[in-house]
Amino acid sequence: MNTERPIAEANPEDGFIESPNNWSMEDMTFILFGATGDLAQRKLFPALYNLYLDGKLPDTVSIIGLGRKYASDEAFQSKVEKALCAYSRRSVDPSNLQEFLAKFRYFTFDATIEESYVNLLKLVEAREKELGIPENRLFYLSVAPSLVDIITSNLHASGLDKNKGWKRLVIEKPFGRDVETARQLNDKLLETFHDNEIYRIDHYLGKPMVQSLNTLILANPVLDSLLDQKLISNVQITASEIVGVETRADYYDKAGAIRDMVQNHLLQLVMMTALYLPENLTDNKIQTKKTEILASLRTIRKEEAHQHVVRGQYEAGEIHDAPVTGYKEEPGVEASSKNDTYFAARLAIDHPSWEGIPFYIRTGKRMNKKSTQIVVEFKHKMVDSDRLKGTSPNLLVLEISPNESISLRVNLKEASGNQFKPVWIDFSTSSENQPEAYELLLFDAILGDSTFFAHWREVELSWEWIEPLLNAYEEDLLPLHGYRAGSTGPEAAEELLQQKQHKWW
Amino acid sequence: MNTERPIAEANPEDGFIESPNNWSMEDMTFILFGATGDLAQRKLFPALYNLYLDGKLPDTVSIIGLGRKYASDEAFQSKVEKALCAYSRRSVDPSNLQEFLAKFRYFTFDATIEESYVNLLKLVEAREKELGIPENRLFYLSVAPSLVDIITSNLHASGLDKNKGWKRLVIEKPFGRDVETARQLNDKLLETFHDNEIYRIDHYLGKPMVQSLNTLILANPVLDSLLDQKLISNVQITASEIVGVETRADYYDKAGAIRDMVQNHLLQLVMMTALYLPENLTDNKIQTKKTEILASLRTIRKEEAHQHVVRGQYEAGEIHDAPVTGYKEEPGVEASSKNDTYFAARLAIDHPSWEGIPFYIRTGKRMNKKSTQIVVEFKHKMVDSDRLKGTSPNLLVLEISPNESISLRVNLKEASGNQFKPVWIDFSTSSENQPEAYELLLFDAILGDSTFFAHWREVELSWEWIEPLLNAYEEDLLPLHGYRAGSTGPEAAEELLQQKQHKWW
Repeated sequence: MNTERPIAEANPEDGFIESPNNWSMEDMTFILFGATGDLAQRKLFPALYNLYLDGKLPDTVSIIGLGRKYASDEAFQSKVEKALCAYSRRSVDPSNLQEFLAKFRYFTFDATIEESYVNLLKLVEAREKELGIPENRLFYLSVAPSLVDIITSNLHASGLDKNKGWKRLVIEKPFGRDVETARQLNDKLLETFHDNEIYRIDHYLGKPMVQSLNTLILANPVLDSLLDQKLISNVQITASEIVGVETRADYYDKAGAIRDMVQNHLLQLVMMTALYLPENLTDNKIQTKKTEILASLRTIRKEEAHQHVVRGQYEAGEIHDAPVTGYKEEPGVEASSKNDTYFAARLAIDHPSWEGIPFYIRTGKRMNKKSTQIVVEFKHKMVDSDRLKGTSPNLLVLEISPNESISLRVNLKEASGNQFKPVWIDFSTSSENQPEAYELLLFDAILGDSTFFAHWREVELSWEWIEPLLNAYEEDLLPLHGYRAGSTGPEAAEELLQQKQHKWW
Repeated sequence: MNTERPIAEANPEDGFIESPNNWSMEDMTFILFGATGDLAQRKLFPALYNLYLDGKLPDTVSIIGLGRKYASDEAFQSKVEKALCAYSRRSVDPSNLQEFLAKFRYFTFDATIEESYVNLLKLVEAREKELGIPENRLFYLSVAPSLVDIITSNLHASGLDKNKGWKRLVIEKPFGRDVETARQLNDKLLETFHDNEIYRIDHYLGKPMVQSLNTLILANPVLDSLLDQKLISNVQITASEIVGVETRADYYDKAGAIRDMVQNHLLQLVMMTALYLPENLTDNKIQTKKTEILASLRTIRKEEAHQHVVRGQYEAGEIHDAPVTGYKEEPGVEASSKNDTYFAARLAIDHPSWEGIPFYIRTGKRMNKKSTQIVVEFKHKMVDSDRLKGTSPNLLVLEISPNESISLRVNLKEASGNQFKPVWIDFSTSSENQPEAYELLLFDAILGDSTFFAHWREVELSWEWIEPLLNAYEEDLLPLHGYRAGSTGPEAAEELLQQKQHKWW
């Protein structure tokens, strides 16, 4: 837990810390590496603007965007404006746009040249003086992985990190490509930042549903009571995409679903789900609990991987009635590629709270629909009786995207006779205009709240858990199952659940 | 439990006995005392007809209606037809009406003359021969309480009870007016019938919601999990009427709400609610469990009655904007009457499953609405935090009449911001055309299933529990609170709950 976070305000009585709105934010400098990149335009600028509209930016904030191309502040600001018009969830308000844009400065920057950093420091300090703000500096790295260690060591060398105020580093995935490289990267970062100054983005942790789950459970004891080991049969976490590899082949063909989705997002969702058993949580317990769960995730040795894991790769098929090519035919993909575009596994958590409750996870590209959801399946009374005709297991479904909802499936008696039918009950008011993950995460980073970021120990443990599977891949101990694009994935994934008389929902 | 019930078919595995539809019904004679009375026209004939439409009457059934006035079979049958047209929930089908009416015979009968019984026996036997049916006889007494023991002893004297097949007695409330008279009545009945041949009607036990609750819980483990002592704050059972005493003053002014509603209906609902903790039920456990609960209902001594009980009587007021008189001004009511038209109490069940969970019950005439419902209030996180703004306790509401529904109130987050609002979730498909209580009860009586009838031990225990309160009434140890007609009852009933920081829902 970030030590700068006012834990003192945590109230053990009521189960969580005070609402952020009550917090005072410190003026700061937001230094964005990769300000001309895609993420900045689509996510970061819109997020900053919506935070600004909600009064969730410090009174005075100096935002400095860095990019290799030359551009004037004005040109940069109008680029930001374009991004807002194109991607902001709330339309741009002319009456405050200029005030917002005025916070932005642009700095032409070559990450590989030490001098750039010296000049950057001058600009940062100049703005701090100009605006009369303390030396609080947030470095946001939206850059190629290869640049991360270069940048951080130069931040150190140039003295940018020797500020009087606080400093924070926000970085994007990937965080290494195995235990070894992840550790190297982390050691590198620790030369410049303390562990509690490093904020590793996993945008799945920014999803409103993931973030509000705790509150929703606190607000509804009846919901809380359903998260009970005695009641739960199994848990299923799905993150399926319709899109294929698109233009990312040179990264993706080396990473695969296992690195791109499983090691980070899916394991984070496993932790976020599992941590609600057995107890009610306080926000400041979340991190400890997550590590505890990940540590008790049963290792799957490479020799037994084939019994618990299904590796798949999409073949030609149809999406929305239009033919699409198979993965091997995608531009930039090796014709001989054995890369996984689909991954499914049965996990066991060796933790008293989850004894005997399997967690099924799956993710894939070119599936029949885009959906991220967590399904909790409850034990079902399997009775051979007229009186329960038509019943099927109760389900609790947390839909994370594209829509946000919590719903419960129950068996209702039909008006006439004893026949039952399953009916969905929606637990959450769906929203047209939920804040985006990056808004919530940036706000937390600005506040110094690291609850919903991936902490080093989590990253390390998840890579350790993944390692034997990576080996099984390399040694080809796992069959690579083909599946038709636009399908629900390989047949083998169905069989994986049938082994325990379960089925994907 | 009625020994004739095929308990052998009970399946301990799946939690209940086989669906009645699987049962074979035996041909029988249905002897109705009070066939020209109100209950017969409004409830019994329509119930028999709807059972007939559902194929829930024995293949051959001889129905004999008794009344004091002279009438021909034809006249009686057309009286039945009129009743069906006026009161049947399903409209009369000309294609089968005659077949149904042909089952009916009328017999002019004076309950006080022994000879009537001798002649009745002749008719019963003649019809049994004519229809070739066994000597299975169901005696349904829809008569004034004063006639019950006369009739039963004459049934014995005349030999009507010495049939080769089975015999059953179905009787309506009131079953005595205190412990003493109830015991006398029961002893009287036992001279002619075995305990397991006596079916005491409590039509609240015939309500579809009360009868299907068990199945609904079995079908939904999530619903079952809510009936948990750890979760429940208190239970509230309400049976309110809009009507006043109407034309029933000479009975009601001597009975009062305590005898008319509390001793039977409300205490039955208390049992039916409480028996779901802690375990899942099989139908054949219901009776034992009910007695167990009633036996552990903490006695309220007459000296302390005023701390736990509120006695009320309605005064002049308004119903639907029309002025109505007070109870004392009602025709047939003593101007000095201290009779209770309202009763509320806080009950404690000294049973491990219900330790520390108060049961509140209330009933009244001339209230603001007609409603019978059970509310289970769950413990609520009382936290002083922005994050739970707008939340209030989760509620599980079983509405028994006028509508049938199960609903759950949860706190949902509003689309924007952290504000919560309570939202109702309806657990049951409401029905225009539910079977009526009397259909279900008559069917059970025909099958010999006594599950949903009031058993002697329950009646005796409830009178024993009521006794000290009756004494408190007589010795005037309880204030008689007036309340305006059309209101929610006496202020004192609100205070009764406030003592434990509760409120009526």
